[in-house]
Amino acid sequence: MQSEATVKQADKQAIREMVDTWLDASKRGDLTTLLNLLADDVVFIVPGKEPFGKEEFAAQNQEQMNDTKMEAKIDIKEIEVVGAWAWMRSFLRITFTRPEGEPTKLSGHILTILQKNPDGKWVIKRDANFVTPETASPQ
Amino acid sequence: MQSEATVKQADKQAIREMVDTWLDASKRGDLTTLLNLLADDVVFIVPGKEPFGKEEFAAQNQEQMNDTKMEAKIDIKEIEVVGAWAWMRSFLRITFTRPEGEPTKLSGHILTILQKNPDGKWVIKRDANFVTPETASPQ
Repeated sequence: MQSEATVKQADKQAIREMVDTWLDASKRGDLTTLLNLLADDVVFIVPGKEPFGKEEFAAQNQEQMNDTKMEAKIDIKEIEVVGAWAWMRSFLRITFTRPEGEPTKLSGHILTILQKNPDGKWVIKRDANFVTPETASPQ
Repeated sequence: MQSEATVKQADKQAIREMVDTWLDASKRGDLTTLLNLLADDVVFIVPGKEPFGKEEFAAQNQEQMNDTKMEAKIDIKEIEVVGAWAWMRSFLRITFTRPEGEPTKLSGHILTILQKNPDGKWVIKRDANFVTPETASPQ
């Protein structure tokens, strides 16, 4: 039997891989994969609008992905696993580039609650996401 | 022995009481009580600035509380308890009134991670806090 510490370590690794899969699917515009990484009752909390769920996430993404190239880099600050639950704090930086436009840079901190499905797969349950457009540095 | 469900229910009730204590201490400007409800390594994540900890929270609060009357109302949307950890999603509305000024209204959603200390007391561990000044409604 595996020790609790070993299981936790494996879960943290599984969450890191899930985050890699998420970013990779975001870059490729692979909405099906993204939706599979969300709990059905996921709630995104973001600045300046009401919290929203899976359907609105899908609608936003389809709009965003048309013709847009995306680069993303995440810095995972901490992951805490407790049984079939986990929370993660991270910092995300994204660059969107349209075919004939200037790149748009966004960044911000994220606090995420994750849940382990009965099949052992981790999904995003709640996501408090402060990613907003980077403002020009003050003169 | 108590069932797991009974313990969870008691923990949820304890967290609700902790939130009441928090708001009450905020209104009274009782910084000592507020700091006792924070984990030593608490991290607040808020819009437009870097995440900060207990010391900066204390400094901000001392500044804010001078002569300012505060009213606050919280709507707890959900609490999930798992062992010695919990997460809570809420919506907070605050009104600050200075002796000779107009009231300032702030509101926003909050995602909070809580931890149960060995003494059974719940404290705030991470707080993703979207509370910002309410903008005037569009004309």
